[in-house]
Amino acid sequence: MKSPEKITKQSENFSKWYTDVVRVADLVDYGPVKGTMIIKPYGYAIWENIQAIFDKRIKSKGIANGYFPIFIPEGFLKKEKEHVKGFSPELAVVTYAGGEKLTEKVVVRPTSETIMYDAFSKWISSYRDLPYHVNQWCNVVRWEKKTKPFIRTTEFLWQEGHSVLATEKETDELALGRLEEYRKFFEEILCIPMYVGKKSEKEKFAGALYSTSCEALLKDGKALQSATSHNLGQNFSKPFGIQFEDERGKREFAWQSSWGMSTRTIGGVILTHGDDKGLVLPPDIAPVQIVIVPIYKDAADKKQVLEYIEKVKDKTKGIRVKVDDRDQYSPGWKFNEWEVKGVPLRIEVGPKEAKEKKITLVSRIGREKANILLAGFNTDKELEKFKKSLLEMAKKFVSENTFEVSSYEDLKKVIEVKKGFALAPWCEDSKCEQKVKDETTATTRVIPFDQKDIKGKKCIVCGKEAKVWVYFAKAY
Amino acid sequence: MKSPEKITKQSENFSKWYTDVVRVADLVDYGPVKGTMIIKPYGYAIWENIQAIFDKRIKSKGIANGYFPIFIPEGFLKKEKEHVKGFSPELAVVTYAGGEKLTEKVVVRPTSETIMYDAFSKWISSYRDLPYHVNQWCNVVRWEKKTKPFIRTTEFLWQEGHSVLATEKETDELALGRLEEYRKFFEEILCIPMYVGKKSEKEKFAGALYSTSCEALLKDGKALQSATSHNLGQNFSKPFGIQFEDERGKREFAWQSSWGMSTRTIGGVILTHGDDKGLVLPPDIAPVQIVIVPIYKDAADKKQVLEYIEKVKDKTKGIRVKVDDRDQYSPGWKFNEWEVKGVPLRIEVGPKEAKEKKITLVSRIGREKANILLAGFNTDKELEKFKKSLLEMAKKFVSENTFEVSSYEDLKKVIEVKKGFALAPWCEDSKCEQKVKDETTATTRVIPFDQKDIKGKKCIVCGKEAKVWVYFAKAY
Repeated sequence: MKSPEKITKQSENFSKWYTDVVRVADLVDYGPVKGTMIIKPYGYAIWENIQAIFDKRIKSKGIANGYFPIFIPEGFLKKEKEHVKGFSPELAVVTYAGGEKLTEKVVVRPTSETIMYDAFSKWISSYRDLPYHVNQWCNVVRWEKKTKPFIRTTEFLWQEGHSVLATEKETDELALGRLEEYRKFFEEILCIPMYVGKKSEKEKFAGALYSTSCEALLKDGKALQSATSHNLGQNFSKPFGIQFEDERGKREFAWQSSWGMSTRTIGGVILTHGDDKGLVLPPDIAPVQIVIVPIYKDAADKKQVLEYIEKVKDKTKGIRVKVDDRDQYSPGWKFNEWEVKGVPLRIEVGPKEAKEKKITLVSRIGREKANILLAGFNTDKELEKFKKSLLEMAKKFVSENTFEVSSYEDLKKVIEVKKGFALAPWCEDSKCEQKVKDETTATTRVIPFDQKDIKGKKCIVCGKEAKVWVYFAKAY
Repeated sequence: MKSPEKITKQSENFSKWYTDVVRVADLVDYGPVKGTMIIKPYGYAIWENIQAIFDKRIKSKGIANGYFPIFIPEGFLKKEKEHVKGFSPELAVVTYAGGEKLTEKVVVRPTSETIMYDAFSKWISSYRDLPYHVNQWCNVVRWEKKTKPFIRTTEFLWQEGHSVLATEKETDELALGRLEEYRKFFEEILCIPMYVGKKSEKEKFAGALYSTSCEALLKDGKALQSATSHNLGQNFSKPFGIQFEDERGKREFAWQSSWGMSTRTIGGVILTHGDDKGLVLPPDIAPVQIVIVPIYKDAADKKQVLEYIEKVKDKTKGIRVKVDDRDQYSPGWKFNEWEVKGVPLRIEVGPKEAKEKKITLVSRIGREKANILLAGFNTDKELEKFKKSLLEMAKKFVSENTFEVSSYEDLKKVIEVKKGFALAPWCEDSKCEQKVKDETTATTRVIPFDQKDIKGKKCIVCGKEAKVWVYFAKAY
């Protein structure tokens, strides 16, 4: 029997803790090409659960999926000048194919605005075609210098939704509506509270009029941009020629929005809920929601326990349950393994439980044990309780690690000592933002929608009149 | 109102019919890079249905999904010499990335054996790790010279399953078992009968010990290789070093199988069931299984009809139903549109139906009309009936277009005049196979598992003693 692998403590080396967890919990392996990742079945099952739930939510809004090619002619990228400037440094370029040098190089999609919008320009001609929405689940490639499994990889999986609308107002509403969908998904399904707001000019998506984002505050005090929704204005419709005839027969350029969420989300889950024992998974996305571990000494015990477990299983219909009846591992070994893998609830069943018609229920949070009657066991209620605790813990952490600051000194203290989010008055000048970045490596995360009164406040960097409250933090 | 687009008749120009159908039914558009295809929402919904059903079947066998990187170091391909020879001409190669020339070129996966098996060599060490299976749904790229939507495209979507086993016998069983799963899926879900058997040496997968295949006979008499399952022997485990310690502590090279099915399947559905009116979709994969078209002249009629349709909908729970209540199109226009899109059943409801508590039910096959009482309408039964008819029609076509031949002249007649499959005695010499290909463009499709007595039969090409019966046909 292999002895369980050790996981570095969070307090010892947080970054090492993370790479230990993703390896020991069997989520990923490293690919042979720099910065690529293999998502192993246990990790991929988490993504499948995320996909299934979010896909249903997308479809419930009447938005269908499609699929656009991974190869984009290099010339398409160049049509929107900010877009190409932003993505050029990260592109993977195919120059040979089918044994020949290509006459026009093709890039592997880093995002699909350009290839989709070329198609939209052919599909859309009238106001009757609007609003037009399409979503796709696919792989994208961005050649990154520093990588980390799930958080930043050369190739990742995501959904990218694209909407074409007639007016600025509708596009504002759509972009904010999609962001709110993400926020709800993170909170309701992944138990991660999010700060939502607008990105600064400097931090917005390359080519957007403005970007909005959900930002998580992780256990190491860093921020994770977890989903974004952009109002692209007419920045793409003009170079790509997406025009429609309005009710009065006038040709107008369309307005657009794109919105996306990726496998990075799994990194966010790990870095929000994980502890020194390993993963802690929100029930809705856990590949195994309840693990049942039989405990017995001899064959007679075993028979009795396994028979009783069938009755326990009857109470878990519709739940992803695993009975770990492997003979070659001890119960203690199994407890450890399923704790590393973040299974929300564990049920221990021995001869005593079988006799008394009870179960020993152990929560992955705090690993509290409860010896309860099987008759009184309600899986839905227990999993709901688990979700609630998880979200409450995360909310508490976020609130305890967010600090309002009124001076540059305070900001530095939050970033460098307390390690968290600093909510600061800012003049909106990107020079001030840049200064903070240069000196502390912290960046503006979002200008929250929920703005407190800013009147009379001074920018913590330059001292001039502040225009907005903004969150600063170090980010992944 | 746009007038419905015309579709070329099959008898006029079959190839034009196909490209008309995929365009007019709004399944695909062409991508900007040669041979790429955009799968539009209606086409993608068909793929999603195929995926959902087949994925469930894969998982029911205890096989989980994972995800491996799209980028493969060029050197990996070269490790298995037949494999690289087979795939080299079709590779897309990334030579620049992140603004720099790469020191080792990477290829965009044409299939994932090499990148997966490099990983497997690290994951597998003992007989206890076997059998090991993993499946992935992904995009792959093969730079093809001649392309056709769904049938052969530069990029396509597929599932590729990979199995690692301890012995040859288990691998034979696994490979044949997976093929049988495909055959059942095609017949039960897509209503397409398949010829199953072994590929000739010349036609097998590059790197396989042997390949097995499901071959469909399409309406134009051509064959479509629709899914394959390979016994890879130890051809990959040796160069990639996939070894395990057996029960006695001896190190052995593993045996392997890979098996796959792609978006080509949608092409197979169109080319098996489609007719001059457009698509005919098997109910299980149809994005819309039943369309309800209200028929009314005035507002009073409309109100009554739409109210009655709510009752009709009560009878269609669990079914993908669409009520086409668009005011700007006539019923006739709608009938045509949904026929092009291949919706299995149409329900017409007018004031007469509403009054008499009836519906007019129209099948996409033959477009027979039936005026029946709503109370007697059973959706499951009707859809089952539809499936049965579809499969029967396809089986009849296949049987009518498969001919046993005993001379080369007969073979030519089948290939060039009758246009179908020729079942012929063959000596298994690839020179004979090549001669047929050179002279008729037909290739060997499969050596059927179900072999009739071959004793005394002569190879139709060279006249020497025949060893097997084999199907010859022109293929996509």
